[in-house]
Amino acid sequence: MAAFDALSDILRERYLLGSTASTIGWDQETYLPPAAVDHRAAQLSYLSGKIHELGTNDHFRKALEAAESESLPEQAANLREIRFQFDRATCLPQKLVEESSKVSSLGKAAWAKAREDNDFASFAPHLEKLLAIAREKAEAWGYEDEPYTALLSGYERGATTTEVATIFDELRPQVATIAAEAVERSKSVPADLLLGPAPIGDQVTLNREIAESIGFDFDSGRIDTTTHPFCTTLGPRDVRLTTRYDENDFASSLFGVLHETGHGLYEQGLPSDEAHLPSGESVSLGIHESQSRLWENHVGRSRPFWEKWLPRAQELFPHLRQLDLDTFLAAVNRADYTFVRVEADEATYDLHIILRFIIERRLLNGDLAVTDVPGAWNELFQELFGMTPPSDSLGCLQDIHWSMGGLGYFPTYTLGNLNAAQIFAAAMKKSEIKQAFEKAETRPLLTFLQQEVHAKGSSLLPQVLLREATNEAPSASSYVAYLKGKYLE
Amino acid sequence: MAAFDALSDILRERYLLGSTASTIGWDQETYLPPAAVDHRAAQLSYLSGKIHELGTNDHFRKALEAAESESLPEQAANLREIRFQFDRATCLPQKLVEESSKVSSLGKAAWAKAREDNDFASFAPHLEKLLAIAREKAEAWGYEDEPYTALLSGYERGATTTEVATIFDELRPQVATIAAEAVERSKSVPADLLLGPAPIGDQVTLNREIAESIGFDFDSGRIDTTTHPFCTTLGPRDVRLTTRYDENDFASSLFGVLHETGHGLYEQGLPSDEAHLPSGESVSLGIHESQSRLWENHVGRSRPFWEKWLPRAQELFPHLRQLDLDTFLAAVNRADYTFVRVEADEATYDLHIILRFIIERRLLNGDLAVTDVPGAWNELFQELFGMTPPSDSLGCLQDIHWSMGGLGYFPTYTLGNLNAAQIFAAAMKKSEIKQAFEKAETRPLLTFLQQEVHAKGSSLLPQVLLREATNEAPSASSYVAYLKGKYLE
Repeated sequence: MAAFDALSDILRERYLLGSTASTIGWDQETYLPPAAVDHRAAQLSYLSGKIHELGTNDHFRKALEAAESESLPEQAANLREIRFQFDRATCLPQKLVEESSKVSSLGKAAWAKAREDNDFASFAPHLEKLLAIAREKAEAWGYEDEPYTALLSGYERGATTTEVATIFDELRPQVATIAAEAVERSKSVPADLLLGPAPIGDQVTLNREIAESIGFDFDSGRIDTTTHPFCTTLGPRDVRLTTRYDENDFASSLFGVLHETGHGLYEQGLPSDEAHLPSGESVSLGIHESQSRLWENHVGRSRPFWEKWLPRAQELFPHLRQLDLDTFLAAVNRADYTFVRVEADEATYDLHIILRFIIERRLLNGDLAVTDVPGAWNELFQELFGMTPPSDSLGCLQDIHWSMGGLGYFPTYTLGNLNAAQIFAAAMKKSEIKQAFEKAETRPLLTFLQQEVHAKGSSLLPQVLLREATNEAPSASSYVAYLKGKYLE
Repeated sequence: MAAFDALSDILRERYLLGSTASTIGWDQETYLPPAAVDHRAAQLSYLSGKIHELGTNDHFRKALEAAESESLPEQAANLREIRFQFDRATCLPQKLVEESSKVSSLGKAAWAKAREDNDFASFAPHLEKLLAIAREKAEAWGYEDEPYTALLSGYERGATTTEVATIFDELRPQVATIAAEAVERSKSVPADLLLGPAPIGDQVTLNREIAESIGFDFDSGRIDTTTHPFCTTLGPRDVRLTTRYDENDFASSLFGVLHETGHGLYEQGLPSDEAHLPSGESVSLGIHESQSRLWENHVGRSRPFWEKWLPRAQELFPHLRQLDLDTFLAAVNRADYTFVRVEADEATYDLHIILRFIIERRLLNGDLAVTDVPGAWNELFQELFGMTPPSDSLGCLQDIHWSMGGLGYFPTYTLGNLNAAQIFAAAMKKSEIKQAFEKAETRPLLTFLQQEVHAKGSSLLPQVLLREATNEAPSASSYVAYLKGKYLE
């Protein structure tokens, strides 16, 4: 047997176990009876141990080395990524891995309580430990410019802190200006325009019709209900989305579904025969988020889209019948400052991310002490938003990410926005895609994404993928142009 | 570490994997997208290989032998059962196991088509092979009296064909007489008395209220929808029931739920800390079925139960308001001959089972050729029911069991009926249980079942458990008395 095939067999076994763990993880979020949570945790911990073991033991190392010596050119990209993951997984001392898992688990519980009690002081010692572990990991993983890069590149392969900082520095004043203007202009749009009776059954119907019409394959996926919406893949033809329903706000579940459907279309577009290989896996969070934001915002908040769908929404939700298309579009594109990131709109979202990036980077570099986080947060918030959070719960305690050790994750949200705009603009340069889109026919757009993004898996680094898909270097210019077009014209 | 603890650790690992397989199996029946079925099959096949391996390899054999030499008296029952399962799993040649799995898989598909086409001849060669494999297994497993016992005891530990034949021979004329009389008397009760508009949401509400009121713990379980109702356990505190809904027949889902809740209460009553050991497992299908039949029939078709619940049912389903309690009870206890077992009522059900037992036993013993099955079936059916199936699809092709290699399974349904009656009668001898039951207060009855049946796990053989719980030898007398009381008085 060829060496790469032998390696592939191990990866296939790991994928069987990994997708099994994902399945019982999905069940935990959707249908698990409350008292069953301890046993589910034991199952997941057992499986993740086995999965880790399969991909890090000596047997795997030898199989990888053999495949590398074989040097099949068509497997070079897969081997590059397998090696990256293997080295990252094996270079951490076992003690650090165990400590990290323990500290994250305690950190998550402490954070939930601290947020509830608006008590940053009780979370601070946990954040201190989480930060120390993140620093240790960064040293083990290595970096080109500064420690933050080692964390970031776990989520955004190949990205560096320097590059991100350059882009964010360029973005910040522009977004701040656009946001201020957008918020000002939105003052004429009542915040509750879209609210009104929306029976859940009818929301389910509309969401499904829309998800199906933009290409989500319900033979290979489904939508369920959870408190926190997500998209997870349980197998090569099994993509599960979730959303939540507010009986008075159809738009909240609908835009949630559009977002998750964007993730789901990416997953359904990956090469399913290679699901166990990097070439069958999504490439980075910044590219994943680009797909969700593209469908949620560039498509889902556009005029052509609602020319098509507003009549159907009005059929199901009679309170919308009093709104004309322009008013409706103004409502779904309304901007306002919020303290909380997950409630932010397109005009203000990136300010939340830029703030987090600055704080995280300073923490990692030792330029900011943990105890000074609330002060730094509030000061920066005042600078960016012109207001100060009334509590840490609505400030530096609002997000779960740090408590789980997820330092370095936040920038991928804004990278997703930038990538979405750059990819969408590239697609719209093709007249047949643009013409169809103007009639709310998105199949050509999806075909473009499938060919240029989805089908590539992790064969290309994210930056290369983006460059090849758009014929441009990664930059903020398409995104800024998009925001300006939406909010300033 | 003590030898039994070492063995226990392997069993705990096997249980983690087994309960994981059950979870993804449940998902397959409830929520799996259609195109995901191949990957799910690959996952299940991988897991079942691992589970089999863990419980049959040399490491396990040595751990079992060590635990046996340790001879802890408190673990004698567990070791007896672990040894039984180990020997049964390891004494089959690998070739036979593989052949069996292949033949069952092909058999199931061939059966489904043969039933659809009413074409026994196309299924006959499969049944021939299934029978040959069943005979080979029986020889490998060994038996006291005749080969059928080796199959039967895989479902009903400790039971023999001779004992079952003795009980069934005694039962047959009595049930035949009662059935004939019950069918005659039921002619005055219209078959469609209970039919009428029953919105699914209201059925879900009533089913849940009733399941909860008889003790099903929704913190440790749930009810979902499937084509074929079942009960499965995914962990020590995770019991999943399913049912199906007919929008015109609330009784069909309700009695289905009562049946599955009976299974579920048994599973929820097993010692959860010993879920990985025989002492934490259900003991046999005949005892399992006794719990479902007890709640479905002895409780669920009783006068006290409907004195309590009929007003609530009438509230939800207005078409029931025209029925008084007596008429309602006559309707839920109506008897009629049917060709199909799964549609049979209490008065006639056992005749279907007795027929199958006779046919299976003759097949195993070589007294009946596969090609003669349809003729033998129809002849016996005429004898027992006074009518002949109009087709094999409504005759010998109606059940899935044989096609999956499940020869020897059928008797456990009637054993379940007998056990249910014997256990219920024993409970009713206790005046506090009986007095409560007459007010539809079933908590004391459940406590009795929990103490005498559920808590025992597989520590006692089924026949011993039954004797200890009821202070009587296993017999048909309580059951016959129950049927007479219901149908002849």
